[in-house]
Parts: sequence; structure tokens; C-alpha cells
Amino acid sequence: MAVGLTAPQHLAAVAGIRLGTATAGFKQLTHPDLVLIEMAPGATCAAVFTQNAFSAAPVVLAREHLANNPPRYLLINSGNANAGTGKQGYAAARVSCEIVAGQAGCLISEVLPFSTGVIGELLPVEKMQTAVPQAYANLVEDGWQGAASAIMTTDTVAKGCSEQCTIDGKAITVTGMAKGSGMIRPDMATMLAYVATDAAVSQAVLDSCLRKAVNTSFNRITVDGDTSTNDACVLMASGAAGNTLIDAVDSTDAVSLFTAVEKVCGFLAQAVIRDGEGATKLMTIDVESGADEGECEAVAYTIAHSPLVKTAFFAADPNWGRILAAVGRAGLANLDLNAITIHLDNVCIVRDGGRAGDYTEAAGQKVMDQDEITIRVALGRGDAAIRVWTCDLSYDYVRINAEYRS
Amino acid sequence: MAVGLTAPQHLAAVAGIRLGTATAGFKQLTHPDLVLIEMAPGATCAAVFTQNAFSAAPVVLAREHLANNPPRYLLINSGNANAGTGKQGYAAARVSCEIVAGQAGCLISEVLPFSTGVIGELLPVEKMQTAVPQAYANLVEDGWQGAASAIMTTDTVAKGCSEQCTIDGKAITVTGMAKGSGMIRPDMATMLAYVATDAAVSQAVLDSCLRKAVNTSFNRITVDGDTSTNDACVLMASGAAGNTLIDAVDSTDAVSLFTAVEKVCGFLAQAVIRDGEGATKLMTIDVESGADEGECEAVAYTIAHSPLVKTAFFAADPNWGRILAAVGRAGLANLDLNAITIHLDNVCIVRDGGRAGDYTEAAGQKVMDQDEITIRVALGRGDAAIRVWTCDLSYDYVRINAEYRS
Repeated sequence: MAVGLTAPQHLAAVAGIRLGTATAGFKQLTHPDLVLIEMAPGATCAAVFTQNAFSAAPVVLAREHLANNPPRYLLINSGNANAGTGKQGYAAARVSCEIVAGQAGCLISEVLPFSTGVIGELLPVEKMQTAVPQAYANLVEDGWQGAASAIMTTDTVAKGCSEQCTIDGKAITVTGMAKGSGMIRPDMATMLAYVATDAAVSQAVLDSCLRKAVNTSFNRITVDGDTSTNDACVLMASGAAGNTLIDAVDSTDAVSLFTAVEKVCGFLAQAVIRDGEGATKLMTIDVESGADEGECEAVAYTIAHSPLVKTAFFAADPNWGRILAAVGRAGLANLDLNAITIHLDNVCIVRDGGRAGDYTEAAGQKVMDQDEITIRVALGRGDAAIRVWTCDLSYDYVRINAEYRS
Repeated sequence: MAVGLTAPQHLAAVAGIRLGTATAGFKQLTHPDLVLIEMAPGATCAAVFTQNAFSAAPVVLAREHLANNPPRYLLINSGNANAGTGKQGYAAARVSCEIVAGQAGCLISEVLPFSTGVIGELLPVEKMQTAVPQAYANLVEDGWQGAASAIMTTDTVAKGCSEQCTIDGKAITVTGMAKGSGMIRPDMATMLAYVATDAAVSQAVLDSCLRKAVNTSFNRITVDGDTSTNDACVLMASGAAGNTLIDAVDSTDAVSLFTAVEKVCGFLAQAVIRDGEGATKLMTIDVESGADEGECEAVAYTIAHSPLVKTAFFAADPNWGRILAAVGRAGLANLDLNAITIHLDNVCIVRDGGRAGDYTEAAGQKVMDQDEITIRVALGRGDAAIRVWTCDLSYDYVRINAEYRS
């Protein structure tokens, strides 16, 4: 089902980062559902989490642990979100970290927990007792493919990619994986995404690099507008490449690394939309010439969240009136319809206050028949611009969310 | 399909208000699609319109005409929204009013035009030439039932109701009709609603009565969050009942009239949701003990617009985690999960930061199997409260909006 997306053929190992998986059976016993990621001593790590006011127990605990010391291990389970589970859920997340710490001989606060799956059910933490040692035992640098599969829930394909760049004469690798398909409207990071590099990077540069990359990738996608309770994105840097430490935010090396990280995050974010629940089309929404970024964002997300626009795209119906109506209800003051143009790819559909004079239904239909379509709205009010990705709303979205309890 | 709603058996005539219909064939020739409403000389009329920045041509013209003089005629067509049609659309709306004015011998500005249907296609105004005289010829006080059917688009049943009250010793009738099923998130008034009374009411009292009634009815419903370009709600008062003019906003008589008008508007607004596109359930969302009405509204609409909540209700799945996640992403600062309770009807699902201790899946399932369900969220932050109505998201919503071009 995923639009123009297949599982990664190869994910490059990142020196100093090892991954292991196990089948704990949080939901079913048919595939691995537990991932352990180990960072070499001295690695740096940056993370961003959901802005949903009801952060899941693992998110709360991960934030606390990060404030204490740099992490050595990430423990990720799919099949149970451990969200809306109160004090018991928090205790379960802590016990999970204890099990890893006991196995690996590290501090409890050196372990960050992550969960994704059904909300509101208690995490059967006893399943960690046997699964964590198994995952620990099979930690390997070449473990990205297996890990990318083990974190999936309603995803139909695993999502990952690798980029290479040269910094300080050293070959640097950036590899990342993500999961997410529904309840997608990240407000700091997507469902779960893990990106690692072997570059040596200071904490400040890594934090800045992650924040900037997330803002143009995971924070610019939406499937259904539903920001999850469990969103998290982590960027790890092992330093194993041996480059001189990148410690100035605006240095050439920091820019090179950022470029590679942004590419990986952008690929992963788009992969989440291509595999959005029930998606049959990838829509790129470009809002241009706005007075500021905020109003561009308001217009872009109003279009992206409109069930009427989304169902029209599912039907491949060039029903541009629905796009126009969405722009009109985005809450912008003094919006002048006469200054606005709207394009579907290169076909102008709205100009001079109504349907473009040279628009033909045939031209609109030709674009709508494609799997990937850009909606471009020019507001004619300034220089700000924004890009957002979304997918259509199909029967399968309803089926998946009526059948699956997530 | 409509949830607990059938077409009205009887709509009481309102003395001084006559309605006529005709089949113009704006979309098809199978049923009447044109309605003319006549108000007796001296009637007062109040109206509210969409806040969508791209008001349709008839909305723009109706606002201009209302600013000039009190209206005598309302001309309503279904099958074509005359929205996104630029200067040509405005001209077409004006010609429509001219045809009525020529027929009835009134000023052009005494006619208010209304359109609903496909956005972006030019109104074939020549069809008004034969249809308007037909509608004029069959104007009758007992024409509400026919008119309520003629204004339908994707509606599956006609929507109307009547209320009676006594004011100044006179029997007063309030009758109203509405249409609307999709693109429903009124931001002043719903798609199209017309309410009339035979009470004698001053303009100021009528305006206040309409605004207040709309705020607790049409402005509190949503099917898909898509505010239409054509929303309008009109309240007419003929004065034919012979009561002493109601001209003090807070008088007992004004309150009596408001109570009847609010009942009619509330019934019609709820009827729109019961007949929401693809609806199988009516959900009433009560948000209580908020710090102010704004935050209650934010929570209520975030739940009402969540595709995940809506599909869970379609599946009759007591997946309360999705409600919790929606409350958490509603944007409220310093939200304390421990202070929040959430009920499905009388079953408490969330308390003390997680699933309520006495909650059982069986109790939740029993409520979810009903056609009509109240979601009650208590925020524990103050005294404000709000009520909103919505419906679920079903396969049929997708089918209707993938097939129908509206």
C-alpha cells in the first residue's frame, strides 16, 4: 500500500552503535517487538519528545533520565504504548530500565525507554525479563534492518535510510530508522525515530542539529492531525569516525553533518506519510508568499487536515473548491481571494478570485491521477513559505482504525 | 442512515411567511431545487453568515442587501453553491435577485440570495427565468415541508421542526428548517437554516435572539471541521400574531421567544449531525470545569475532529486512549492528567491519571453499542463548560465524499 516506498535494501552500520532485537510478545509472538540500542562510551545523544500534554510513562521517564546523564542504552518496545497508565505505567517503565541496567552493568538513568502501540493497557513488564537478555546477546552494528522491522505497528513497510559525507577528511555515516503510520501529527518528533552517526559531535551541536532537522521533516508531516502521546526522535553520535570534535554550531563541519542528518530525517518523515494508514497518494503542500511562517503553517495544515480535501484526492477528483474552502477557513485576517493562486503541480486552478481562465478539467484530472501531487498555494502577502506532507483519506484508513486498537 | 431522525411529520405554518418551490434543474430535474420565501410587509429579519474568508457570491450580495434595507424575499437554490466563481458568480447572484424583484415588484436589494451545492461551477442563472415565476406562483404559508426537501443536497432526510409559546396572551409559532450533512463546522451559522415566527419583534431583539440561539446550536456542531463558504442562518418575524412589539432584549417576552427559537435551532443543529455524511452515531461532547470557555471549546473540538476518535466510535470500540490523547493535544497549558475525569455516559473511563480503577471493558462496550453517546470530560480547572455535537467517521463518509463533488 505504501506510496512509492519499499523497505530499505541496505542500512549502513554506524561504528560505535549496536542494535539487538527480541520477541517479547507484547502483542503477538509472530515477530520481534523489542529493540535494544547501545551507544559506545563517550557517545553524545540528543532527543526530542511529543508536546502532547499527556506524555506516556516512558516519555516522562526518558526526559528525567536525559536530564541526569548521557544515555548508554535505548530500550524500545512495540505493541504497547504504556500511555494513560498512571503510576503503574511509570513503575513499569522504570523496571524495564532496571532490567537493562542489571544486564549491561550501567546506571538505570543511562537507559531511555520508548514504547509504541495500544494506549491505556499496562505494560506486561515481566516479558522484559527474558527478552532483554536476548536482545542484549545479539547486539550488532549491522542490526538496523531487524530493528527497523521490530518497531513497526500498523506500518506496512520498514523505514530506514543511510547517508554518507566527509568531515575533517573522515568518511561519516548517518543511518536512521522510524516507525509511524497513524496518529501522526508530530509536534516535536514523530512516533519513534532513531538516527545515528559515527561523527564526533558536541552536545550543543548535536542538539541544534536535531532540532533544526526535525523542524523541516518530522514536524512537517501529518496523517490525521492526531499528535501521539509517545512521539520521540533520537539522534546519537558515537564519535567512532575519529574526526576532530564538531563543537561550533555554525562551522562547515556542523553544516555538513546537518545536511546529512536533514536528508535522513526528511526521507524518514516522508516515508511515514507514504506509509500513512490507508494512504494511496502522497501530497506535498507548499504555501508561499505568506506574511509570516505561522500563517503559511495555518493554511498548509488546514488543507492537510481537511477530510473533504483528503477524500477528493483519494477519489482523484480535481475538486479544487474544497482546497479553496480550506484556505478560506484557515483563520487568516483580511485574506484577499483575488491575490491568491493555487496550483496542482504546474496546473493553475485558482487565479483572479475564481477558477483560472485557462484551467481545464482534463489538465486537472491528469495531475490527480498521479500517486504524488504538489498543492501549491501562493497567498500574495509576503515572503514566508512552508512545506508540509500529508496523504489522502481512504476506506482503508477507516478500516484500519475501526479494526485496530492503537 | 440518519441517527434517530426522520423527516418532520408536520411543520406549522407561520402567519405572514409564505414559501414556494420549483424544479430549476441546477443539478438534476428529479426534484425541486429552488425555494422562494416571502415575508409580509413590515416583517423583521436577522441573518448570520459564514466566517470563511472566501464567502460565496450569494453570501457577499446578501450581506450588501441586508445593509441597505429589510428583505422581503429569500431565494434559495440547491445543486450549485455559486462559490469560488469570481465576478461572474456575483453577477449571476444579482441577476437572480433581479428576476425575483421583477416578478414580485420589489427592490432588488429586498431579495437575499442563498446557494448550496457544488463549489466552483457557474450558476446557470437562465434556469431562474422560468423557475422563479413557478415558485412565486405557488407561495403558500403551508409550504415548509416542500421547502425543507428542496434545499437538501447530500442530506438523507429533510430537517425541520416547530415550537409554540404564548407571548402577551397570543399563541406564537416558531418554525424552522435546515440543510447540511457535510462540510459542516459552522462558524456563525450552519449551511442553510431558516427559522420564522409570527411574533412582532424589533430588529435589535431579533438580532440578539438569533445570535444567542446560533451560539448554542449551529455554532456547536461539526461533522468534518470544514467550515463552508455558504453557511447562512436567517430568522424572520412577521408580526402577524398581533402581540405588542417585543423591543427590550431582556424582557420576559424576549426570553420566551428566545427559548422557542433556541429549541428550534438546537433541534435543527442536532438534526444536521444526526444526518452527518455517513453518520452511524451521534456523539455529544460535554467539556466541564475548564478555566474558561475557550479551553473547553479547544478540548471539545479536538475530540470532535480526531479521525481516530471518530473511527473508534464507528467501530463501537471503547478505545478511550484515543480520547485521552486528543485531550492532551488540545493545546492547554499546564494540563494535569491527575485532575481529569472522562466518562462515556455514566461509565468513568479515566480517573487519577489513568484508566479508572472500576472501569470494565464490558461496561465501556455497553455504552459504545448505543447509537447516541455522551463523552464527558471534566478538566478540574474552573467553572466553564461547553457542549458540542458530532458524529462518527465511517466508510460511507469516505464513499460519499469520494463520489460526490460538493
